[in-house]
Amino acid sequence: MSARAGIVVTGTEVLTGRVQDQNGPWLADRLLELGVELGHITLCGDRPADIEAQLRFLAGQGVDLIITSGGLGPTADDMTVEIVSRFCGRELVLDAAVEARIGEIVKGMMARFPGVDADAVLAANRKQALVPAGAVVLDPVGTAPGVVVAGSPTVVVLPGPPRELQPMWHAAVATDAVQTAIAGRTRYQQQTIRMFGLPESGLADTLRDAEKTVADFDRLEITTCLRRGELEIVTRFEPRDTATYAALEGLLRDRHAREIFSTDGALVDDQIAELLAGRSIATAESCTAGMLAARLTERAGSSAYVAGGVVAYSNAAKTELLGVDAGLIERHGAVSEPVAEAMAAGALQRFGADTAVAITGIAGPGGGTPTKPVGTVCFSVALAGGASVTRATRLPGNRSDIRERSTTVAMHLLRRALTGGG
Amino acid sequence: MSARAGIVVTGTEVLTGRVQDQNGPWLADRLLELGVELGHITLCGDRPADIEAQLRFLAGQGVDLIITSGGLGPTADDMTVEIVSRFCGRELVLDAAVEARIGEIVKGMMARFPGVDADAVLAANRKQALVPAGAVVLDPVGTAPGVVVAGSPTVVVLPGPPRELQPMWHAAVATDAVQTAIAGRTRYQQQTIRMFGLPESGLADTLRDAEKTVADFDRLEITTCLRRGELEIVTRFEPRDTATYAALEGLLRDRHAREIFSTDGALVDDQIAELLAGRSIATAESCTAGMLAARLTERAGSSAYVAGGVVAYSNAAKTELLGVDAGLIERHGAVSEPVAEAMAAGALQRFGADTAVAITGIAGPGGGTPTKPVGTVCFSVALAGGASVTRATRLPGNRSDIRERSTTVAMHLLRRALTGGG
Repeated sequence: MSARAGIVVTGTEVLTGRVQDQNGPWLADRLLELGVELGHITLCGDRPADIEAQLRFLAGQGVDLIITSGGLGPTADDMTVEIVSRFCGRELVLDAAVEARIGEIVKGMMARFPGVDADAVLAANRKQALVPAGAVVLDPVGTAPGVVVAGSPTVVVLPGPPRELQPMWHAAVATDAVQTAIAGRTRYQQQTIRMFGLPESGLADTLRDAEKTVADFDRLEITTCLRRGELEIVTRFEPRDTATYAALEGLLRDRHAREIFSTDGALVDDQIAELLAGRSIATAESCTAGMLAARLTERAGSSAYVAGGVVAYSNAAKTELLGVDAGLIERHGAVSEPVAEAMAAGALQRFGADTAVAITGIAGPGGGTPTKPVGTVCFSVALAGGASVTRATRLPGNRSDIRERSTTVAMHLLRRALTGGG
Repeated sequence: MSARAGIVVTGTEVLTGRVQDQNGPWLADRLLELGVELGHITLCGDRPADIEAQLRFLAGQGVDLIITSGGLGPTADDMTVEIVSRFCGRELVLDAAVEARIGEIVKGMMARFPGVDADAVLAANRKQALVPAGAVVLDPVGTAPGVVVAGSPTVVVLPGPPRELQPMWHAAVATDAVQTAIAGRTRYQQQTIRMFGLPESGLADTLRDAEKTVADFDRLEITTCLRRGELEIVTRFEPRDTATYAALEGLLRDRHAREIFSTDGALVDDQIAELLAGRSIATAESCTAGMLAARLTERAGSSAYVAGGVVAYSNAAKTELLGVDAGLIERHGAVSEPVAEAMAAGALQRFGADTAVAITGIAGPGGGTPTKPVGTVCFSVALAGGASVTRATRLPGNRSDIRERSTTVAMHLLRRALTGGG
């Protein structure tokens, strides 16, 4: 058995991208937690024909549950309840109790906006008290009540503002109608493995082998995603398939021990924050120009271990602020391993830190040479006491990609240096 | 006549909300610019039946154009091309030229990953050279080629990563197949006005007045958006309504002369880049920790005017690297106008620059006090020769909002200082 759902997000501002939809992803997470399989999310504007077409599409796909968001306001372009009512073959009836409840809420709001015509507002809001006959009404968090209409599929109608939708979703899940609709749900587990330094095709190879060697491999639902230069492998499975997942994880660990940096969902940023506890870090950045320092300080509490950094964009700044020998720059070029090393050493010393990271590279589009093309970036991590790791690499993409990716490479070098992994 | 489109976004990571979809909103914007009406955006996971169902749904809705994003990678769960091929009734054929092209790209990438089995990778990537017979192939930006299949509807298949999808969309629009599909589009003009320092409600007031005083006001399609602390007013209109738009722009200029900083679509970043030509700028950042320096260097060529910066997160760094008097910090606190001013002066001097910007603030969530709550940020802009502007302000939002917004405030103070606007 299983339970399957679809989400209909309505609203012209969301369809046209002026407002980023938050409800689809949020509801997707909630369904995942419940073990309800999400088939489709559909977005459309405030047009009755489009909304109705999406409802019919999802019903045609055999979903057990449809959740709609938006279109419950008092204005003429808010008509989701009316459309759902027609779609479910129910009459639209005025719910006196709901009308009274909205009346109270609106009166409370009016007190804050003197001069507004209370009767006109109440009339507009009466529209919101019209509900499909026999529907379960969800108490409004704003002024708009939601409804649950039991059937095949069962339809849950929620308002668009996330701060209203979220508590009302929890109320909807508690209703008998929704519980009946999702009775077939499966309780899944989800695990995440993160890797760095492996191309996506290398992972694809290993997964093809896993298909042959891991028993019941096809019972695992695996999603792979390349992000910020890292590979993320998310696997969803039923509790009885725990051993299958363990076999997959074992195979990945065997093949890619060096590249796997997280098997518990933690990000490299989380790991670095932990590793830096009790330490003091300084940065020396050229092409990333502060992006690494900014990333290290994204978290609250980072002032406990971030001393600061120097953005040494010009050669003069490298010399003046980080004490890099001008002759060294002349001999090797500003983008070179010796200069990266000297920048890290300078940051360590100038900030009195015990950990330093330096980045110097060619982000482009100009500045590349045959021996040092655009994307050439040198990194150095220095720890107090003399240990240091220095690497040169070549990163793909445009200026923005190269800068962004450089911060990720730096985070991973730092992680390896701090865990003694070289 | 009109042209209507639908967008199919595929990818389990997007459907489940682990990755926020950027392609739907971006493509929605492009369609709007083209004058193509967007009916639906649908999202589904990497499941052939679901992708195919969405294609059929959109075709059933009579759209002229379907754009798909995602599912073009080398792994087994990437199968959009195969599904679209079947949907369009075309055979899937190996395109030798495309295979050779991918081979070259992959070989270039392999150089960065020594030890990976090149043949296995090439075999995995061969899958990406299978295209629907008769389709127009879009050159890959990453390793995945896109395709355009002419028909009713015409289908454009694009890769998921935005940095690949975006240039490939422009290539797709240039094809005859897409031009034919959207031949019925309406050509609109679009103008953008940007303001800084005006609350959204102030703009709403002005627009309400415009409704009464500007003839044919309702023929303008106006979208306002609050972003990065700036107000953006985008107006779309048919060519015959140019005079109406001019009247609106005139009214906005009369009312908000000080707040309007751009009427030609230019961003403050564009303006700053122009204003800094021939100058040398240095930054001194505390709470933003490098974000301003990173922003100033986003553009190619910024090394001509950015000398560098100091991220002075700790008080010791403010003193050691920027020469801020420790007594000043003790008397006024690290977040204070005198310290901001001293930081800017220090940056000017240490980098030998002629322009400097300093930011020091409390990004939270901790560190606030009754007199200096979270969101208190002090800015100082110093120009060689002694001119300086210093401001304290209180910014709304969470840690990330406050840091981001601080860079915008700094950009506008810098703009005013450089244009003599104080």
